[in-house]
Amino acid sequence: MQPETKGDFRARLTQWVESPLVRNFVLAVIVVNAIVLGLDTSETARDMSGGMLGVIDGICLAIFVVELVVKMVAYGWRFFLKPWNIFDFLVVGVSLAPGSGGLSVLRALRILRVLRVISFAPSLRRVVEGFVSALPGMASVFLLMTIIFYIGSVMATKLFGATFPDWFGTLGRSAYSLFQIMTLESWSMGIVRPVMEVFPYAWAFFVPFIMVTTFAVVNLLVGLIVNSMQDAHLAEDAEATGAYRDEMLARLDEISARLARLEK
Amino acid sequence: MQPETKGDFRARLTQWVESPLVRNFVLAVIVVNAIVLGLDTSETARDMSGGMLGVIDGICLAIFVVELVVKMVAYGWRFFLKPWNIFDFLVVGVSLAPGSGGLSVLRALRILRVLRVISFAPSLRRVVEGFVSALPGMASVFLLMTIIFYIGSVMATKLFGATFPDWFGTLGRSAYSLFQIMTLESWSMGIVRPVMEVFPYAWAFFVPFIMVTTFAVVNLLVGLIVNSMQDAHLAEDAEATGAYRDEMLARLDEISARLARLEK
Amino acid sequence: MQPETKGDFRARLTQWVESPLVRNFVLAVIVVNAIVLGLDTSETARDMSGGMLGVIDGICLAIFVVELVVKMVAYGWRFFLKPWNIFDFLVVGVSLAPGSGGLSVLRALRILRVLRVISFAPSLRRVVEGFVSALPGMASVFLLMTIIFYIGSVMATKLFGATFPDWFGTLGRSAYSLFQIMTLESWSMGIVRPVMEVFPYAWAFFVPFIMVTTFAVVNLLVGLIVNSMQDAHLAEDAEATGAYRDEMLARLDEISARLARLEK
Amino acid sequence: MQPETKGDFRARLTQWVESPLVRNFVLAVIVVNAIVLGLDTSETARDMSGGMLGVIDGICLAIFVVELVVKMVAYGWRFFLKPWNIFDFLVVGVSLAPGSGGLSVLRALRILRVLRVISFAPSLRRVVEGFVSALPGMASVFLLMTIIFYIGSVMATKLFGATFPDWFGTLGRSAYSLFQIMTLESWSMGIVRPVMEVFPYAWAFFVPFIMVTTFAVVNLLVGLIVNSMQDAHLAEDAEATGAYRDEMLARLDEISARLARLEK
Repeated sequence: MQPETKGDFRARLTQWVESPLVRNFVLAVIVVNAIVLGLDTSETARDMSGGMLGVIDGICLAIFVVELVVKMVAYGWRFFLKPWNIFDFLVVGVSLAPGSGGLSVLRALRILRVLRVISFAPSLRRVVEGFVSALPGMASVFLLMTIIFYIGSVMATKLFGATFPDWFGTLGRSAYSLFQIMTLESWSMGIVRPVMEVFPYAWAFFVPFIMVTTFAVVNLLVGLIVNSMQDAHLAEDAEATGAYRDEMLARLDEISARLARLEK
Repeated sequence: MQPETKGDFRARLTQWVESPLVRNFVLAVIVVNAIVLGLDTSETARDMSGGMLGVIDGICLAIFVVELVVKMVAYGWRFFLKPWNIFDFLVVGVSLAPGSGGLSVLRALRILRVLRVISFAPSLRRVVEGFVSALPGMASVFLLMTIIFYIGSVMATKLFGATFPDWFGTLGRSAYSLFQIMTLESWSMGIVRPVMEVFPYAWAFFVPFIMVTTFAVVNLLVGLIVNSMQDAHLAEDAEATGAYRDEMLARLDEISARLARLEK
Repeated sequence: MQPETKGDFRARLTQWVESPLVRNFVLAVIVVNAIVLGLDTSETARDMSGGMLGVIDGICLAIFVVELVVKMVAYGWRFFLKPWNIFDFLVVGVSLAPGSGGLSVLRALRILRVLRVISFAPSLRRVVEGFVSALPGMASVFLLMTIIFYIGSVMATKLFGATFPDWFGTLGRSAYSLFQIMTLESWSMGIVRPVMEVFPYAWAFFVPFIMVTTFAVVNLLVGLIVNSMQDAHLAEDAEATGAYRDEMLARLDEISARLARLEK
Repeated sequence: MQPETKGDFRARLTQWVESPLVRNFVLAVIVVNAIVLGLDTSETARDMSGGMLGVIDGICLAIFVVELVVKMVAYGWRFFLKPWNIFDFLVVGVSLAPGSGGLSVLRALRILRVLRVISFAPSLRRVVEGFVSALPGMASVFLLMTIIFYIGSVMATKLFGATFPDWFGTLGRSAYSLFQIMTLESWSMGIVRPVMEVFPYAWAFFVPFIMVTTFAVVNLLVGLIVNSMQDAHLAEDAEATGAYRDEMLARLDEISARLARLEK
């Protein structure tokens, strides 16, 4: 096999695997797989199918593996340059992990394959890409919240850990309880009032914590809105304004040129 | 009856049924019907009226049916082109469904007729039309959330269904519980802490689920705000700016023309 | 007494009652009254004061009455043209209502007098006026929510009233429970799950109700943001842009005039 | 030592203490200290370290004290002009307070030293400065909410204090309960429904309270969004627009000047 032929083969393979027919077929397999895994949660359906559900799921997985292998052959190492390919690779790969037949957690992760539908539907891709592109702008606030949570967890563990081991016994439990408090779920009746029966001044820790974290979340939201708005605003407005300004300057140039001729 | 006469008859019927007098009368009937159905929830009022409430409700329904029939005759098949007519048709039709006298659910649906007041009050219509016009822009995010909920439900059913059948026994129950968790209602004290007593790592499923769905809801909100803002912004600003820009260009054209004449 | 003298007297009275000295004195009385009414909630403070708190409260009330009477004399019927005057009048008047000494509810309303501080502090006044000015723009959505709540209450009372009289026994109880559900407080664990044990399809009523009302509230919020933004945006931007545009047009006029002279 | 030499010494000290090497070293000490204080919450880690954790924490504290003393010598009284220096001073000082070795609360406050990382990371500093700069604009709404909470607390204590001493027994307890109600946590099932069993009209106090405070919070949020938006909007837009406008006016001036010369 000559290099040129090999390149030709790869190009044809790329063309084939990216053709609408193949893409729609894989999309259909994803949907079938989603339905099968959904039916698999019902014992009745599982009994009625007599093992068919597992067989169909296996076929779907095989098709995914073949598709990914074809893509990897077609694109070579450039396959891993596209984030969505890495996403597909991980989501399919998790089903092939050793022991995935035994552990119920790994079996449950099979359904994540359905997420592949996102990489196939452009409108969903755009939404997810919009989400992801919003993340870097929130990195500083996230880091700040991590610091606040770390400090809050250490303080809560030190102060209330001995008396309320279930809620604040370890750093992890404190972090979980503080996350619950940040979401305002049962923060008072469930956590702070019982704590205040032992430590009457516990509110002086929890109420400021709620205020600070809520304020930080609100600032995340405000940042998101302002960013989205500016992107949308600048894109639309700038075009019309830019065109008008160019025309204004062009006309003034013309007037200047005429005046220069007149002066002569 | 000649076709022309028939057309005349329809035109006059349209004019009559859309006249302020008839519209206000139907609006009054809607309000009366709302009050009667409200009184009907009180046993005392029901006893005191001695069946009058049912009679008045029947008369109101009859008036609605007559009004809709007149409109359908007047407009012909074009009646069903207006979404608000279809809305009225369904809302009145549900009271005429067979068995509506017996089943308590269908009886309870009679109150939906009060929604007709929306199609009669232009300000309410505009609000509802604003709501509905916002929906298509949120379709992608809704589809994404449906996928997330489906995947979450399958995973939760697989992982926790056997141990907590009330919350995660079937796909439907899981979806309901996950909806509750997304609204942050008792998510921790009510659901996740009990689950974590059996599966200590359950938070690794629920906390990311909360973060992803909350983030998606926030993005819906941001999208709504940005859209509303752009619509409002463009409409108001563009008018003033457009007029100014046209004038500027017109004046520069005039100056150019004068200079051209001077050159000659 | 001549009319002119009477007018003079009124003008001087207005000047006096609106002078910084009198205004600051009344403001101080409001603050003293707030502290006194706050101390009045503590039995210890009440016992220690030996009736002094009630006496001071009475003096404060007397000062307010005198101030309002002076204002009413000074302004005449125009006193009631200013909304803040009506506000002051009602808030002070509630303490003079017959029986206000006996009924604990009316006694508790005395603290509302502290609200007068808002009408004395311009920055607080502006905030409240901002709140109130936002209300008319939300009237349609409020009306729509009232209709949704009415329909929801009638349906809930009809469907679940007999089985859950505490939550849905009457229209009022249903409305209260639906308000609680709209705020997402214990909607599932507290209300809907118990209801679903009797009516398995109750979620088909409550989940759409939550979605519709939450969406309506979100639209209220979006409307508020868009309105505030436009006001702020237009006010600031328009000034700079307007000035620039005026100057541009003035300069073009000048150029045109010069050209006209040249043409001659 | 001559004054000039002293100034030289201070300048060199400033240069040294602000050099990247020293700053990064202090940053590393902060991170080490955070880890040590985190490990200190685990009894196992404490036992295994055999007192080492306390020793390392002491060394970290000593380094902080030395760094701050050096800075205070280097900057003199100007040290206290920078808010971040005051912040560092307080956060380190709390660990040196007498009795900090004994009281568990003061020991727990040691972790606040980790907050120093904010003053060392510019991106975190900017976020916190953004938060703080947003506060003055919210001062009026905060003051208004304080007044509402004070009035609400006095009323709730007067009305429900005798019957529900745990929730509304004192002004402080009422304020805490009203804060809980404002966050919508268990407001109905936990507080208002039990209160309504004794005072059937209690909803007439709590439901308006929820509406008013929620509306005030929403207005805070709206204010934040509008402010952030304007800042961002003006900064970006104004630059481009300003440059364009200056150029337009300059060109028109030039055209005018030429026309003036032509006239001569």
